[in-house]
Amino acid sequence: MNHCSAPLDILIQGGRLLSLAEDKAIIEDPLIGIRDGEIIFVEKAHAPLVSLYAPKEIIHAEGSVILPGLINTHTHVPMVCFRGLADDLPLMDWLHKHIFPAERKHVNREMVYAGAMLGIAEMLLSGTTTFCDGYFFESSVGRAAHESGMRCVAGMGFLDEDVESVMEGQIERLRRTAEKFLGKWVPAKPMITPALFCHSPYTCAPQTLRTVKEVARRHGVPFLIHVAETRDERAMIKDRYGYTPVNYLNSLGVLDGMTVAVHCNWLDAGEIACLAAKGVKVSHNPQSNMKLAAGVAPIPDLLAAGIDVGLGTDGCASNNDHDMFGEMDSTAKLHKVIKRDPSIMDAPTVLTMATMGGARVLGLDRLIGSIEVGKKADLIIVGLNKPHLTPVYNICSHLVYAASGADVQTSIINGKIVMQDRRLLTMDLEEVMDKITRISVDIKLSC
Amino acid sequence: MNHCSAPLDILIQGGRLLSLAEDKAIIEDPLIGIRDGEIIFVEKAHAPLVSLYAPKEIIHAEGSVILPGLINTHTHVPMVCFRGLADDLPLMDWLHKHIFPAERKHVNREMVYAGAMLGIAEMLLSGTTTFCDGYFFESSVGRAAHESGMRCVAGMGFLDEDVESVMEGQIERLRRTAEKFLGKWVPAKPMITPALFCHSPYTCAPQTLRTVKEVARRHGVPFLIHVAETRDERAMIKDRYGYTPVNYLNSLGVLDGMTVAVHCNWLDAGEIACLAAKGVKVSHNPQSNMKLAAGVAPIPDLLAAGIDVGLGTDGCASNNDHDMFGEMDSTAKLHKVIKRDPSIMDAPTVLTMATMGGARVLGLDRLIGSIEVGKKADLIIVGLNKPHLTPVYNICSHLVYAASGADVQTSIINGKIVMQDRRLLTMDLEEVMDKITRISVDIKLSC
Repeated sequence: MNHCSAPLDILIQGGRLLSLAEDKAIIEDPLIGIRDGEIIFVEKAHAPLVSLYAPKEIIHAEGSVILPGLINTHTHVPMVCFRGLADDLPLMDWLHKHIFPAERKHVNREMVYAGAMLGIAEMLLSGTTTFCDGYFFESSVGRAAHESGMRCVAGMGFLDEDVESVMEGQIERLRRTAEKFLGKWVPAKPMITPALFCHSPYTCAPQTLRTVKEVARRHGVPFLIHVAETRDERAMIKDRYGYTPVNYLNSLGVLDGMTVAVHCNWLDAGEIACLAAKGVKVSHNPQSNMKLAAGVAPIPDLLAAGIDVGLGTDGCASNNDHDMFGEMDSTAKLHKVIKRDPSIMDAPTVLTMATMGGARVLGLDRLIGSIEVGKKADLIIVGLNKPHLTPVYNICSHLVYAASGADVQTSIINGKIVMQDRRLLTMDLEEVMDKITRISVDIKLSC
Repeated sequence: MNHCSAPLDILIQGGRLLSLAEDKAIIEDPLIGIRDGEIIFVEKAHAPLVSLYAPKEIIHAEGSVILPGLINTHTHVPMVCFRGLADDLPLMDWLHKHIFPAERKHVNREMVYAGAMLGIAEMLLSGTTTFCDGYFFESSVGRAAHESGMRCVAGMGFLDEDVESVMEGQIERLRRTAEKFLGKWVPAKPMITPALFCHSPYTCAPQTLRTVKEVARRHGVPFLIHVAETRDERAMIKDRYGYTPVNYLNSLGVLDGMTVAVHCNWLDAGEIACLAAKGVKVSHNPQSNMKLAAGVAPIPDLLAAGIDVGLGTDGCASNNDHDMFGEMDSTAKLHKVIKRDPSIMDAPTVLTMATMGGARVLGLDRLIGSIEVGKKADLIIVGLNKPHLTPVYNICSHLVYAASGADVQTSIINGKIVMQDRRLLTMDLEEVMDKITRISVDIKLSC
């Protein structure tokens, strides 16, 4: 037992472990040792030996389940500032009369930082330990994640004012902007993975898409893009470029294993085969797609084609929260009713999508997504001792169909406790909420 | 101000009131007076006068929203004992290999009482103040509701072993059973409305349906029935009786304004017109229908036809929780994506379904469903001072799209505080959960 040679930072003891490792084992009454941000051992408890580990902190998890932290593969976290500002509207009214104008007026470095802090608070309190973001002033999102101890893929956003008239000078400028952004993060802040986010095939010119992907590829970072969200988008791209969205992106050479295609609601069989062949990852955002009536992604078909799929909440203007438990519940139920088959998208499949699936989508599966020796210690503890989680026959079922973010008791990221007994330890929550309330007063006045 | 003549039981002060009354007003900083189970006044606060009311208890609701308690129009509450026992299975396997056998072996008076207590605990903690149940040993459900201060429509269940060979003697027996059950509750326990629940057109013989409805009609109590849940049911009824389910029930004369048709996923335009003409009420259970892949009820069409629609969770074997906030969220989102229209089923419509709509479905709209002078004091207080409910532009939107049952701070039923600061005041929760865990051990052993 050479893992005893130095004192542990944290020892988690008791409860049940759902490791989400390849063997899918559930360990009753486990011992999990954490040191220097990593999982040092995972084993069945041997009570008499506990004192040998000399942990700085012991977490007792009796009556709870320990599982990997959830991975939110897509959001625009500063949009929490617009939560509930405009709902139940036709899509184009929502976007062009409410969201885009509000963004033009109110998005700045300060708002992005404040919004990111609030969104991160929400995520830490509901079991998310890694999120992938795409927005403007993305350095401020990265800074908020860094300060709050959150793991983050921070995608700098690109969107052309007018896709038909992009000049060579603009392209050079965005290349430099992208390079500068990427250079800033690596390797100074290992928990922040920088990425580049092109808004969509219909809001970015082909030169923009090619250039941004080229920079992302050179730096080995993820390239994020909304793809085939609505039927109208599919028609528009076909009309403009002669291809359906996935085939169009493929023709530009931007699809590979480091491309995260978000939404993918409108795909034909050929496009699914193309995504699979290129190793493209998919982020599925069921609640946003439902609320905006955008469509239902053919997730069972994508999984059958061997494509890695993770879950995402999308931004809070279209969901309206960051609770990944809600996304799991909706994922399992939506596809069942759409495909008229209650046996598809079972609880283990969905839970895997929210953990290991998400890690694969973000290219972080060697670091996170399961509780295994050598991986980063990103894990959450969910209390089961509650009426809506009683009795316990099947833990996966409870996590997908009955638990909510509010059942998460403790969140640990990179071996550091960031939330304990529902209290955030890495930020002043009251100050964060006050700041957003002040920002919302301005937003409201200008609506 | 003659409402000051006697001391109040409870005065609620501060926050925002969403009354759900006809005028849909939101009152900022309200005063709500409660005495003898009723709402005595609802007005804008006049701070200097508060001491005149001499309330026995003052509840400060600053930073919260006060709204009518949610009404769950359909569940089988004792089925909490089977929560998570069998998920993600083909419908007939789920029912015939798991649920029916488990029920045959384990359902008895004691299990029903224990399960009802746990389900009620779950509902009180998540903002439900009235539920409509249908199960076996329903007197035990009524008893649990009575003891825990919950308002309940308790539907005694009827189901024929073999619908083809029901004898006259059986019919007489069930008539007497039904009469006896109804006589027991009225008027001794005014918060328990007895009802009769025929399981479905395919599991009850025509004589059973006619007889049970006749007894219900004579006593003026609700008649509950699952209708048109699956496409197979529709085909089966058509094959057996020559009618589609609603037309078949209409031919038996069992449809009227005191009939609650649950599910209604497979209806044609003629059946919708029939339900509207007869004044039949509908209970919509979106999460159960999604999880079992049963279908999607044409709710926008039912509402357009002027039919009263409430929301229900269904039993925990097919959902798997009793959180009405989840049902609201799913209702709003599911119909949007199915109808490809993000503007339908807006937040106020859905919130109304979960409150006044539910009250109308259960025939209790003169007593509950809104916060108005003269109505019973059934209300809940939801704390807004949380990251996922910040900022506040639109309270309805938050309640439907971002809140969960865990955000309910206080629940009051019939003027009595039953849950305060997330603690249940009318039962020993630990004992209730222990009991269910013991029952679950037996159930698990026999699976």
